[in-house]
Amino acid sequence: MEGRSEGWFETKEMDIRSMPSSRHASLPYRVGVPPKQNFWTEFSSTVKETFFSDDPLHSFKDQSRSRKFVLGVQAVFPILEWGKRYNLKKFKGDLIAGLTIASLCIPQDIGYSKLANLSPQYGLYSSFVPPMVYALMGSSRDIAIGPVAVVSLLLGTLLQNEIDPIKHPLEYRRLAFTATFFAGITQATLGILRLGFLIDFLSHAAVVGFMGGAAITIALQQLKGFLGIKNFTKKTDIISVMQSIFSSAYHGWNWPTIVIAAAFLVFLLVAKYIGKKKKKLFWVPAIAPLVSVVLSTFFVYITHAEKKGVQIVKHIEKGINPASVSEIYFTGDYLLKGVRIGLVAGIIALTEAVAIGRTFAGMKDYQIDGNKEMVALGAMNIAGSMTSCYVATGSFSRSAVNYMAGCQTAISNIVMSVVVFLTLQFFTPLFKYTPNAILSSIIISAVIGLIDYNAAVLIWKIDKFDFIACMGAFFGVVFASVEIGLLIAVSISFAKLLLQVTRPRTAILGKIPRTNVYRNIQQYPEASKVPGVVIVRVDSAIYFSNSNYIKERILRWLTAEEEQLTAAGLPKIQFLIIEMSPVTDIDTSGIHALEELLRTLQKRDVELVLANPGPVVMDKVHASKLASLIGEEKIFLTVADAIQTCSPKFAEEV
Amino acid sequence: MEGRSEGWFETKEMDIRSMPSSRHASLPYRVGVPPKQNFWTEFSSTVKETFFSDDPLHSFKDQSRSRKFVLGVQAVFPILEWGKRYNLKKFKGDLIAGLTIASLCIPQDIGYSKLANLSPQYGLYSSFVPPMVYALMGSSRDIAIGPVAVVSLLLGTLLQNEIDPIKHPLEYRRLAFTATFFAGITQATLGILRLGFLIDFLSHAAVVGFMGGAAITIALQQLKGFLGIKNFTKKTDIISVMQSIFSSAYHGWNWPTIVIAAAFLVFLLVAKYIGKKKKKLFWVPAIAPLVSVVLSTFFVYITHAEKKGVQIVKHIEKGINPASVSEIYFTGDYLLKGVRIGLVAGIIALTEAVAIGRTFAGMKDYQIDGNKEMVALGAMNIAGSMTSCYVATGSFSRSAVNYMAGCQTAISNIVMSVVVFLTLQFFTPLFKYTPNAILSSIIISAVIGLIDYNAAVLIWKIDKFDFIACMGAFFGVVFASVEIGLLIAVSISFAKLLLQVTRPRTAILGKIPRTNVYRNIQQYPEASKVPGVVIVRVDSAIYFSNSNYIKERILRWLTAEEEQLTAAGLPKIQFLIIEMSPVTDIDTSGIHALEELLRTLQKRDVELVLANPGPVVMDKVHASKLASLIGEEKIFLTVADAIQTCSPKFAEEV
Repeated sequence: MEGRSEGWFETKEMDIRSMPSSRHASLPYRVGVPPKQNFWTEFSSTVKETFFSDDPLHSFKDQSRSRKFVLGVQAVFPILEWGKRYNLKKFKGDLIAGLTIASLCIPQDIGYSKLANLSPQYGLYSSFVPPMVYALMGSSRDIAIGPVAVVSLLLGTLLQNEIDPIKHPLEYRRLAFTATFFAGITQATLGILRLGFLIDFLSHAAVVGFMGGAAITIALQQLKGFLGIKNFTKKTDIISVMQSIFSSAYHGWNWPTIVIAAAFLVFLLVAKYIGKKKKKLFWVPAIAPLVSVVLSTFFVYITHAEKKGVQIVKHIEKGINPASVSEIYFTGDYLLKGVRIGLVAGIIALTEAVAIGRTFAGMKDYQIDGNKEMVALGAMNIAGSMTSCYVATGSFSRSAVNYMAGCQTAISNIVMSVVVFLTLQFFTPLFKYTPNAILSSIIISAVIGLIDYNAAVLIWKIDKFDFIACMGAFFGVVFASVEIGLLIAVSISFAKLLLQVTRPRTAILGKIPRTNVYRNIQQYPEASKVPGVVIVRVDSAIYFSNSNYIKERILRWLTAEEEQLTAAGLPKIQFLIIEMSPVTDIDTSGIHALEELLRTLQKRDVELVLANPGPVVMDKVHASKLASLIGEEKIFLTVADAIQTCSPKFAEEV
Repeated sequence: MEGRSEGWFETKEMDIRSMPSSRHASLPYRVGVPPKQNFWTEFSSTVKETFFSDDPLHSFKDQSRSRKFVLGVQAVFPILEWGKRYNLKKFKGDLIAGLTIASLCIPQDIGYSKLANLSPQYGLYSSFVPPMVYALMGSSRDIAIGPVAVVSLLLGTLLQNEIDPIKHPLEYRRLAFTATFFAGITQATLGILRLGFLIDFLSHAAVVGFMGGAAITIALQQLKGFLGIKNFTKKTDIISVMQSIFSSAYHGWNWPTIVIAAAFLVFLLVAKYIGKKKKKLFWVPAIAPLVSVVLSTFFVYITHAEKKGVQIVKHIEKGINPASVSEIYFTGDYLLKGVRIGLVAGIIALTEAVAIGRTFAGMKDYQIDGNKEMVALGAMNIAGSMTSCYVATGSFSRSAVNYMAGCQTAISNIVMSVVVFLTLQFFTPLFKYTPNAILSSIIISAVIGLIDYNAAVLIWKIDKFDFIACMGAFFGVVFASVEIGLLIAVSISFAKLLLQVTRPRTAILGKIPRTNVYRNIQQYPEASKVPGVVIVRVDSAIYFSNSNYIKERILRWLTAEEEQLTAAGLPKIQFLIIEMSPVTDIDTSGIHALEELLRTLQKRDVELVLANPGPVVMDKVHASKLASLIGEEKIFLTVADAIQTCSPKFAEEV
């Protein structure tokens, strides 16, 4: 990285031998061998590029000690930095956005807590403490923090595999707090160890499929409330749910419930449609859920529909979050289970939050430090687990509303948090007559947005392998369970990476007419091959995982060409040129493979020629003495230079 | 792959608009968009390249049905194919080689079975059946089959973690056969499913380290026999072993044993040295072990040294392999343990055998089908597990002797097998007075060859990361255990691959003086940057695992350049050219990253230009409409073409 500034516009005096005056001069340009690097320089630059690629200490350079301390505190609490520039105009934006997302989150929270098999107040709790903590520590200006559908479902599924939430509600809740605690620890640890890049291993395609599948699963779960069914399966796969629904048809369905649910679902969807058509009316879908709750509650209250079998919320605990530090399992069997569940839920929550953070930061063109963001999310969940919250993260739908309502900073989260506080303190009794069906309708209309049909179509168009990952995750979630879907998504993502490093592409190059450029003859069918020469480009670093394959693949190209030549009665191949431009690195196995290739070629009377090896490769080719085995004079800067030497007649024909 | 023959020496008539008459014409050459590929063509070619890259059915093409059947049988039993050309001259070579490796393997077998905590005859059994089966099915002509030191140690360690071999010898033996059976199943399955490439994931460096560590561990274990210690630790780490040795010093050491062992170790090492110096005398180290056994046995017999505390073999069961099918655990707790141990031992055995097969095939220039080879090795271990053998594989040292003794085909294994048969049938009583110390000396002198000091030095020179993997595996085995060492080796190997796909290299390019070539300015410091243009080369496919990093890294390059320019008071950057030659593939996340990059650049008033995208990338850039977002006219064949358009003045200066 050093020395980058050299070479600016200067034309230096150079050794004339290594500098032919024109491309077509007889002396080819020598391939540069980079200066030998010290092991520690090399090692530390790799470490830096891996873990500190964003240069987080850039602003700390050349500062006094006290200034460094201030910067350090500001790094942990960005609010101290941007708070100084906060003003009334910004607050106006934040206030409106905060009120809007509060009206959206309150009914959602109550519904989502059911997905996690917890009482409704826990959803509200999770919209009180975590947003506060995030506002102090987070760096995204647009994210809206709170419980979200997918994480609630995931947590609920994983937890009920361990403890029955109906038979042992206390143990279940304690395990939930334990999982939340370790979700926070996981997130903060990834951030502190600067391992944030690990979440990039969940590919976009897999996330699209997983989210879509989770949305379907969540919507299906809502049919319980929507149809007023009392005995519902605990499984989440589509087959069990459908069986459960149809076996309870007629006698198990409650018609007043269905009428209320359907009417309000239509209302919510129309509101959503309006918001989509006219961006200015974004507030219509944003306040529609609260309006539905108020209207339906009032309706049930005056008609006493609860006596006709319409299930209602009945009771939400009044008052703010009780402390729950003592409920976390720090010992015993459940500790390990909590760690495992927290790890999975924490990573999925991270994926969602980081994706949101990046998206909106890109739209407003500001930077987000992924690792710092993870520390903030982790801290907020750790704090949450001690105050009766379950895993919170950034919500896609609420963040979009927050953005459209004109939020300026994380203060909008504080506004929302204050509204939730007031609700918990004073308004929970008002929810007594809220029908469960309305919560189901709200959740259904919310999760529909997670099914990204257009993204799936685009994935199909761009990359078929990605599409398989996407569909694998989708069907895994829908037909098996969220865990299976997640497992499929991760496995396919990894398989793709491993495939890339195991079976890299190779291509035969030809000369593009009337130029000096050699390119893949599949992409440029007009390119012509050079008689007596095979030019192969290897499209990957040569590592232990692919060195054997590459060696054998090159020999296979050579054999195929020779068979064609023999069939056509043409002279045999004399040179094999390997275009090394894409070969960015080589390891010991790769060097061995090249040595073996060289030996085999010598037996076949074919000369091995290298074109344009990069700095790392040149370094290693020299370190291993392979350079002298091949012959320094057979390593060229470009394929054109190599052809100039191997087949001068052809080169001149142009 | 089709259409490869087009373009041979022809100069086609081309559309004149897309074909400038010279490199420097004003109209740049258009980047080729490959014809749209059918999904199934693409998918099947990927599958073919992944699993059938060696085109195993090549010879089956255009053959009659009966011929296909014959070819199929020959594919499973290659002996039917090469057997036809077998003659007396070849047999002479095989006979000598077979006798030589037999003399070497008999004492080794007896020693190695102790490493596996089994009675001596099981080592001999394993040198009788498996080589026979391999000779019928294998395709390597030089490999010598039988028990080997590292696999014996690994198996012994893994098995004694489950069952105590002294307290429960029967169960221990049964579990050993179970593990052997599943080792065979693992090997055959990998071969049949054509997943042979999976063993390439164990890097050469890791194998060097692991083997070296295992050799040290094995040698340390031999100190028990060498020093005549009776109470010896069961652990294999160097610290426990050293404690065990020093705590029994003086009172526990047996001096007559040490004298015999040391004398013969010197003899063996001298023989080894002679064999190394004069290639013609290869038979000296090959028969030295048998000579030592004969001499030492005779010596003990006449001096009755066993009464002075020199431990002897005492008893080897007479007769050939008893059947053991009924001893394999097909149900119960031990089944799963057997599967797990078999999996690990099978894969390590494979790694060794395949490496040997490849090495010698390369030296004699014949082809080996790795997958077929795995089926042969698997079949031989399955057969072995039913006839009281434990895991056998190819031995490095014996294969080298086999090769040097002039073996021609796998018949040398049959010769060896026959000698072992005769030994089992008639000569086992002769080993009664063989001192254990001599076996220890033989094993020590054999495993010393596994410590490949030169390879480690070369690894250090070529690739520091590989060296870390090598040392990790080495110290893991020496200081912890073989399993830990193996785990470290595999983990570091994988970490390296993941690092490669997560943090690819990028480079800033400059123009090499008086050429039209743009190269890494770190490798060619004389290259000059183009005013107002930043040229970045991305050295990897752009996938979900690195798309964010690449986007941010490119922006970081741009920012750094701009900071320099501002400091120098020079005009700002107008163009960012991404040289895409090494970008062999891009997925949906990669396309999204480029879109985001484009948007950010637009905000900064910098134009994005692409140079030389490959066929796959062009295809996807078009499928996703990114091409029209960037502008077709901003995608060039070469960086030179792009500069020609972006900075015509600079391009003409040359």
